[in-house]
Parts: sequence; structure tokens; C-alpha cells
Amino acid sequence: MFAADELTFNSDGLIPAIVQDVDSGAVAMLAWMDAEAIRRTLDTGLATFWSRSRSEYWVKGETSGNSQSLVDMRTDCDADALLVRVRQHGPACHTGLSSCFDTATVQAVS
Amino acid sequence: MFAADELTFNSDGLIPAIVQDVDSGAVAMLAWMDAEAIRRTLDTGLATFWSRSRSEYWVKGETSGNSQSLVDMRTDCDADALLVRVRQHGPACHTGLSSCFDTATVQAVS
Repeated sequence: MFAADELTFNSDGLIPAIVQDVDSGAVAMLAWMDAEAIRRTLDTGLATFWSRSRSEYWVKGETSGNSQSLVDMRTDCDADALLVRVRQHGPACHTGLSSCFDTATVQAVS
Repeated sequence: MFAADELTFNSDGLIPAIVQDVDSGAVAMLAWMDAEAIRRTLDTGLATFWSRSRSEYWVKGETSGNSQSLVDMRTDCDADALLVRVRQHGPACHTGLSSCFDTATVQAVS
């Protein structure tokens, strides 16, 4: 076990949160949490992030209904990233895709 | 397809790269790439990162032998994160664990 206040946040007070769908194993998205988003996620059981573009907390699925029920939250060996394992309800991506990473394959600049 | 120079990098010129083991489906680690690390990864087929602590390129497994052979590299809907799918050789984590996220479960501050 690891207390949330022992995590390493970046200079904006944020930590990257990888969201993985435990049913499919797919990596659904990468979003950002601050200490309060972590607290809310652990307290409510619903994945909650800090929106860097809107500067506000964002409960995933609050408007779309495509929420993410927390299974567990893990950190890595240097405690500067999170793996948030969830049950995904509906598509994870606002584009309607099941993963935000279904978008495109990256290729070298020609 | 998405050309690497269309990605969105942060103010340090970096983009977070989620590494997923395609065989187990496990999220192995989160590391960081700049444009050159992406180019090297795509050119060599070996996952290569920018080490923020050492300020140098870092071919995963160069010293440990626990390299990561690239399967594909994907980006997300807003092109500011990467999902690097690999064949993992040996444990992914320097601690000897198969994933850096096997370390600890995060709990609320009591």
C-alpha cells in the first residue's frame, strides 16, 4: 500500500494516470490527476481527473454516461505515474472509440 | 497513419509513452520520448526513451538486456500521448518485476 501523499507530482501538481479497461485489457486513455482528483476517485469509485484545458475536475462520463468504475489504482517504481484499472462503461473516447489510442499509428517523418 | 512531427509535445519537448506488453496485455511502464527518441524507436525497432533524470537517450534494456521490441506505436485522440506496444524481453522494471506498476496500490491518505 502506498499513501496518495507520497506520490511525486510534476511542477503543476499533476501526475499522469494511465486508464486500463480490466475487461478487455486495452489501454483506454491517459489523463492527469492532482491530489484532490486522486482523493475523489478513491472516495467515489469513479475515475476523476483534472482537465488541463478547462482547469476543472472532470468525472469521466459525467455528461456522456461513459463512466469508469475504479477497480484499483497502482503506482510505479518511482511513484510518478498511476495505473488506474477500471470497468469501462461504454466507449472510453469522446470520439466513440473504445480506446483513445485506437486513433492512429505513428510513423516516422518521411 | 500519423506523422511523428504532428504530435503535441509538452514545454520540455516530451510526450508521455505508455509501454504495453502485447503478450501479457500488462502496462509495463510509463516513460518519456522526444521527437528523436520516437525516430530512434521507429528506426531501430527498440524502445528508446529520454531520461529526464539523466538527460540522455536510453535504449530500454541496453545494460540489463531486458529490451522492448516495438510492435507498433499509437497516439491518442488529441495526439499528446503515445501507446508503445512491445514484445518485452525479461522483466520490464529495474526492480525485477514484470511491470513497474506491480509496485504498490495507492490508498487514500488516512
